[in-house]
Amino acid sequence: MKKFNVILTLVAIMALLSSCGNQGQKSASNGALSSSTAEKAYVAPGEHDEFYAFLSGGYSGNITVYGLPSGRMFKEIPVFSQFPTSGYGYSEETKPMLNTSFGFVPWDDAHHPDISQTNGELDGRWIFINGNNTPRIARIDLATFETAEIIELPNSAGNHSSSFITENTEYVVAGTRFSVPVPQRDMPISEYKGNFKGAVSFISVAPDTGRFNLEFQLMMPGFNYDLAHPGRGDSHGWMFFSTYNTEEANTLMEVNSSQNDKDFIAAINWKKIEEYVKGGGGTKMATEYAHNVYDEESHMGTSTMKNEVITVDPTKVPGAVFFLPTPKSPHGCDVDPTGQYIIGNGKLSADLTIHSFDNMLAAIEGKKFDGEAYGIPILKFEDVLAGVVKSGGLGPLHTEFDEKGNAYTTFFISSEVVKWKLGTWEVLDRQPTFYSVGHLMIPGGNSRKPFGKYVVAMNKITKDRYLPTGPEMEHSAQIYDISGDKMQLIYDFPTHGEPHYAAGCPADLLKTNSKKIYRLDENKHPYAVLNPNDAKVVRDGKEVHVYMSTIRSHFTPDNIEGIKVGDKVYFHITNHEQDFDVPHGFSMIGQNTSELLIMPGQTKTSVWEPKKVGVWPFYCTDFCSALHQEMQGYVRVSPANSSTPLTYTLGE
Amino acid sequence: MKKFNVILTLVAIMALLSSCGNQGQKSASNGALSSSTAEKAYVAPGEHDEFYAFLSGGYSGNITVYGLPSGRMFKEIPVFSQFPTSGYGYSEETKPMLNTSFGFVPWDDAHHPDISQTNGELDGRWIFINGNNTPRIARIDLATFETAEIIELPNSAGNHSSSFITENTEYVVAGTRFSVPVPQRDMPISEYKGNFKGAVSFISVAPDTGRFNLEFQLMMPGFNYDLAHPGRGDSHGWMFFSTYNTEEANTLMEVNSSQNDKDFIAAINWKKIEEYVKGGGGTKMATEYAHNVYDEESHMGTSTMKNEVITVDPTKVPGAVFFLPTPKSPHGCDVDPTGQYIIGNGKLSADLTIHSFDNMLAAIEGKKFDGEAYGIPILKFEDVLAGVVKSGGLGPLHTEFDEKGNAYTTFFISSEVVKWKLGTWEVLDRQPTFYSVGHLMIPGGNSRKPFGKYVVAMNKITKDRYLPTGPEMEHSAQIYDISGDKMQLIYDFPTHGEPHYAAGCPADLLKTNSKKIYRLDENKHPYAVLNPNDAKVVRDGKEVHVYMSTIRSHFTPDNIEGIKVGDKVYFHITNHEQDFDVPHGFSMIGQNTSELLIMPGQTKTSVWEPKKVGVWPFYCTDFCSALHQEMQGYVRVSPANSSTPLTYTLGE
Repeated sequence: MKKFNVILTLVAIMALLSSCGNQGQKSASNGALSSSTAEKAYVAPGEHDEFYAFLSGGYSGNITVYGLPSGRMFKEIPVFSQFPTSGYGYSEETKPMLNTSFGFVPWDDAHHPDISQTNGELDGRWIFINGNNTPRIARIDLATFETAEIIELPNSAGNHSSSFITENTEYVVAGTRFSVPVPQRDMPISEYKGNFKGAVSFISVAPDTGRFNLEFQLMMPGFNYDLAHPGRGDSHGWMFFSTYNTEEANTLMEVNSSQNDKDFIAAINWKKIEEYVKGGGGTKMATEYAHNVYDEESHMGTSTMKNEVITVDPTKVPGAVFFLPTPKSPHGCDVDPTGQYIIGNGKLSADLTIHSFDNMLAAIEGKKFDGEAYGIPILKFEDVLAGVVKSGGLGPLHTEFDEKGNAYTTFFISSEVVKWKLGTWEVLDRQPTFYSVGHLMIPGGNSRKPFGKYVVAMNKITKDRYLPTGPEMEHSAQIYDISGDKMQLIYDFPTHGEPHYAAGCPADLLKTNSKKIYRLDENKHPYAVLNPNDAKVVRDGKEVHVYMSTIRSHFTPDNIEGIKVGDKVYFHITNHEQDFDVPHGFSMIGQNTSELLIMPGQTKTSVWEPKKVGVWPFYCTDFCSALHQEMQGYVRVSPANSSTPLTYTLGE
Repeated sequence: MKKFNVILTLVAIMALLSSCGNQGQKSASNGALSSSTAEKAYVAPGEHDEFYAFLSGGYSGNITVYGLPSGRMFKEIPVFSQFPTSGYGYSEETKPMLNTSFGFVPWDDAHHPDISQTNGELDGRWIFINGNNTPRIARIDLATFETAEIIELPNSAGNHSSSFITENTEYVVAGTRFSVPVPQRDMPISEYKGNFKGAVSFISVAPDTGRFNLEFQLMMPGFNYDLAHPGRGDSHGWMFFSTYNTEEANTLMEVNSSQNDKDFIAAINWKKIEEYVKGGGGTKMATEYAHNVYDEESHMGTSTMKNEVITVDPTKVPGAVFFLPTPKSPHGCDVDPTGQYIIGNGKLSADLTIHSFDNMLAAIEGKKFDGEAYGIPILKFEDVLAGVVKSGGLGPLHTEFDEKGNAYTTFFISSEVVKWKLGTWEVLDRQPTFYSVGHLMIPGGNSRKPFGKYVVAMNKITKDRYLPTGPEMEHSAQIYDISGDKMQLIYDFPTHGEPHYAAGCPADLLKTNSKKIYRLDENKHPYAVLNPNDAKVVRDGKEVHVYMSTIRSHFTPDNIEGIKVGDKVYFHITNHEQDFDVPHGFSMIGQNTSELLIMPGQTKTSVWEPKKVGVWPFYCTDFCSALHQEMQGYVRVSPANSSTPLTYTLGE
């Protein structure tokens, strides 16, 4: 059976391609030096880490915040996934954040965080991240460390080559990994070739508020758009995308999409396209996508359904899009701090391909094309090539940069990080990873100003690196000190979810702006109780609204009677604390939702639909004072037809 | 206004009671010694931690697994809460685990983990934990580190003095924090006193399988049952519970339940009650509670609704229950390794009260009672007292023990851990905590055989200990080396959720038994595909079942046509890998559920209800090989009335 043979062959290939390179227990301890290695990763009690690292959670759907060099996780920021811990995606205020054109989606696969930039340098206002599965982009506010906005992307499918920002955060750019029919329609999968499209979305970011607007989508040929990075410096105004499956195969992809010797890096002059669209270019297309915004003053998320997008045919904008041939199924697509070099790492090759931006411009100027693909000019490989790094490794994936002209590339198959010199292409150092490294991150490594003190390698295979925890384990990351000529492995730390890319910055960029409380006098929540005297319970048919306030260690009201089976009870709870780090929690027995975790000055809402007659307790879920255990109340639930009057106790 | 004055007074009291004691940046660095401190917390790359620490997640609903002394988090085990990362609580197999008599409850508040014991020593088979809000007890298998069983507790409300196991894991014992009407009924909250009951549940644990059975519930007076610990050694057969609100107040609890100078520790002779029930004692009561079991071979959870429980009136079993007066609103209730001393820490006092088990037996023997409460004899304080620790601290909460006869008590208000001597009651050492410590944990500290090398303090207030992350922060823990005479703070680490209690054990107890894969040839899942040749798609009316297999890096089938809008599509996915640490993931665009993370040899099921006509991709969400990006497929969705035939591609 041919089918079976193909599969057996695949299994053999896969076993090879997924080998770990450096298996077995190894130690970084090196005799007399081990003490100083410990010191390098150690942050003593009461001292602070030097850098923030924002790791994507991958299939957790969230972002996790770590300190470097300690590798300690300071927060998990819920973005695309429900988070029972705080009630994100369960509270009435946050449920709208997870709305999409497909309805409520409680999860996504978050890959590539990117910190906002001004003039190509990190400015620390926001961090962006992509939802891979149900295509979305999120903006997280770096004063509150909370998700502030999520926009869905129509026509996209597997939003992987995202979210990368341009040099002044003009746009968040997001490319589709999977091409699909645009507009979607009922058609045979076998007719993919020539019929499916790859959408690349440009979402503008308002300079003052950060607010998104989906400005236009470029409809590229039906390849897979894998990763991207922005131009900077001279190449500002351009975006670069790696592609694979230029074969446009649609089945047995692991064989059929690896046939071409070279795929492409797509170079997109977005300034030209922006100009074209501003001049009335592009086509208005009817579609449907959700735009969800969280307002910090009303503490409320709202979801709006949009129904139109401007699409752009790249062949209609001459000089805007070119293909740079790049061996072989390139994965990473990275741009150095000067903006001159575009690195394409063919994941099935050993060598790295470096394109030159100046060469590219010259080739375009000279119109030296090597044919075209769906009307898009293909440049000649030799014309744009700046150099090749003969790495000696296998399976190169991603490259980051320091401020001294060095590049650091990960190799998945040979499990290592290789340091090499930009311009000379010479390999300077290599260090094993444990095991099978994917992305890596240097703080500011995707900007004009990297801070090359540490590199974090995010590994895909963990195996024996930590005490075992059954079949399922966390992925592992490793920190290398790169301040010297040679990289030094200083620490292993487990991560949460599956980090793909990460973004880091010096601690000083964020720590002084970090918000400590929400001001109660600025609380504009429609159900806020700003004074405990105003606490009340209001019935409106079968809906009951509880306007509740909390302060150490009391709920007002603390007892409620007159609730009936079949009611829908909204607990709107305002935390009256105005001190840093005094949240209160709220939960009601048998509730079909999560708790609420309410920050000082904030109002949050939980719904309860009582099903059983009785006297049922609620309590504070966050240990808030020595009398926290006394922070409780009861709700009396009467039968649906009862005449028990609505009453509540305010502390008399 | 009287109401307002009361509240203002409360605010002032609370501010005092929640002060942190030791605010401001402090460092453990101490000049020449700092290097050795770093070494103590440092676990070099490739080396392993000495101890496992299982921290409750509090309002995360889960358990987190850490290493000591590194403070690194190796896994979050989903228990009571939906976990989008792995699909727990979203996949068809795991949704039944969160079923209750109130319906599907996606969250709980997990407090007190306890590792199974044999003859009073940790045996490392299972770990148990309580759900506080919708009363439940869970059992986690320590070979797979997965939740194996959850049982709901009727008549309980705020399942806080739980889950503590007896010396041979005969029972998991669970007490209610809030008393409620039993059976539940529609009655005024103001009639609480004398009418509400406090249920204490005894759940037997089958010695071979660990399987739960709710054997009986003891119906105690309507106090609040706060914490508990089992007797051991001579006191094996007894359980001890701290109580507060012996005032039976029901409003403004933080004032009204702190009126009595002494509350009680309840001493319960469960062997006597067990004998009584085995002899036909107790009352069968109609009720409703869910019992959920996950079967490792079928990879399937099932939920069964039970409808009867045996209740026991303590006054009907003479000699079984006694009250030991204990100042003042005691919180922690801890028993030393010998089983002789029962420590009650009045959270509003400075001193610790230590009761003697022998004194208690003598007092019972001599029938020297100081009256009774609802028919339960009250022993005389002086008769049972073994000693008092004059601590000099404020707000004592919890106590753990080492193997050298020392006890370690946390003080919330004065923010410190105090080490003192059992028997002499002399204070030996004190170290500040940062800030406001709640529980603490020594591996084996709740057993006959503690491993007193480290103590972990779990703090309630974080403030400036780490780089700031906006208003919401993780709680903080601290590790002290207690191998010497004086405790030495060696490291701060942030935790996930809000750890209350924790349980720890030497790494060797678990590491060799940790399962690496599930055997495919033992997979009994009804929809498993054990050979890719058996992959298929079967329509049954509007239900479609996809029998899918995965191996690096391919889904079989990879393309499906003939799905229609309005269908309910079940993806049953079997991971054919049999290597350690090669999970595959699965997600479908626009799905209203989470991904699946499928371990080697396992089958999991995800439901998709397609809403839109088109060609929609799915992909593997866990980077599994160099060709992971090619691990994808498409589903063609046709209109509801379409006649597109059902077809699928198996790799031809």
